Amino acid sequence: MNPKEVVGRKAADYIEDGMVVGLGTGSTAYWFIDELGLRFQAGTLANIVGVATSKQSEDQARKLGIPVVDIDEVNHIDVLVDGADECTTEFSGIKGGGGALLMEKIVAQHSRTIIWIVTQEKIVDTLGAFPLPVEIVKYGSWKLFRQFDQAGMHPTFRKKGVDSIFITDQGNYIIDLHLEKIPNPQQTAFELKNLVGVVEHGLFINYPDIILAVNDAGEIVTYKH
Amino acid sequence: MNPKEVVGRKAADYIEDGMVVGLGTGSTAYWFIDELGLRFQAGTLANIVGVATSKQSEDQARKLGIPVVDIDEVNHIDVLVDGADECTTEFSGIKGGGGALLMEKIVAQHSRTIIWIVTQEKIVDTLGAFPLPVEIVKYGSWKLFRQFDQAGMHPTFRKKGVDSIFITDQGNYIIDLHLEKIPNPQQTAFELKNLVGVVEHGLFINYPDIILAVNDAGEIVTYKH
Repeated sequence: MNPKEVVGRKAADYIEDGMVVGLGTGSTAYWFIDELGLRFQAGTLANIVGVATSKQSEDQARKLGIPVVDIDEVNHIDVLVDGADECTTEFSGIKGGGGALLMEKIVAQHSRTIIWIVTQEKIVDTLGAFPLPVEIVKYGSWKLFRQFDQAGMHPTFRKKGVDSIFITDQGNYIIDLHLEKIPNPQQTAFELKNLVGVVEHGLFINYPDIILAVNDAGEIVTYKH
Repeated sequence: MNPKEVVGRKAADYIEDGMVVGLGTGSTAYWFIDELGLRFQAGTLANIVGVATSKQSEDQARKLGIPVVDIDEVNHIDVLVDGADECTTEFSGIKGGGGALLMEKIVAQHSRTIIWIVTQEKIVDTLGAFPLPVEIVKYGSWKLFRQFDQAGMHPTFRKKGVDSIFITDQGNYIIDLHLEKIPNPQQTAFELKNLVGVVEHGLFINYPDIILAVNDAGEIVTYKH
């Protein structure tokens, strides 16, 4: 079993039957959803419902038979299990490498317990080596690009394939900022969100309650908030 | 001539030939665009180009023959002429009654001079009698609605006709907040923009350089910042 599969399947232990489960997005969350599917089919988690953070995770869950509802059909999500592209043991991180940061953050806002599942190398002292995704409205997007560029933030438009610009599930663009280091994530988060045209950004400050980090040998370290 | 027509046509005096002109949205901006069209056709403003704040103003300008370009095709807008739903003589206001607040704010961000054209009764001491529009992403919109409701902000979804929810030019919903009074617009603006799921709001703090206010007799008072 690869480490992502180990930690993804392990996270399913945090789910109890009857829960509303937040379904993360990405290559680690994939294994969590897969394990949920097994337990759903086996009957040990026969009464869960999922709330998806992307079309992709919704499709995967539905194929496994797990009922998926819109976030507005539930009062709250009991447990959200999601990946992260980079995170600190101070419980902040960068998400959105898969392009789902907006829906991930909306689901996270309404989740009682948030679990991040990551491979050990995703844990860093300082965020920023991973490009920071910023979801922006289409209109005026080059203006924002130029603004980021002039501020030395090394922006690139997220592409889909070679030629087309990636469009998020909510119909927006993503600009990735290649910052290398983000010394003050709270300040950066604040400045980005307050720009006209920015819908959301991939800085998740103080989000997860639990981080499960797996090393190459498949051993899991648990960080609790 | 009705007062809106008077002030709309008068605002065209601020436009010089060769300028990039921001085209506002609404029943007062309509007359400004109409006057631009007359002067364009007469040759006195034969070399202007427009940047629209809505599909509606774009369509109107094109019908009059005025070339309209995307905001990303110009470096900046020389003069933006737009309406407001409510404004103070401290140069702040509420916009978005027409549903175009996001594009209006994006265009305003890149405009060197901003002129608001209003009828006298739009000028108020305290903002808030006019419902404050908030543009939000579709996903999780009822969660935000409930949040506003619980905070006593009297939200309503913007409707289109009787049954359908209004969708903005950028593909989002609008929730109108019936606040009656906004004692601290800066604080309210800050809190709204920082909510996950909020794309933009209709509070324009410190935006216009000039306000042209017309009374029922067609007399115009000019406020300069």
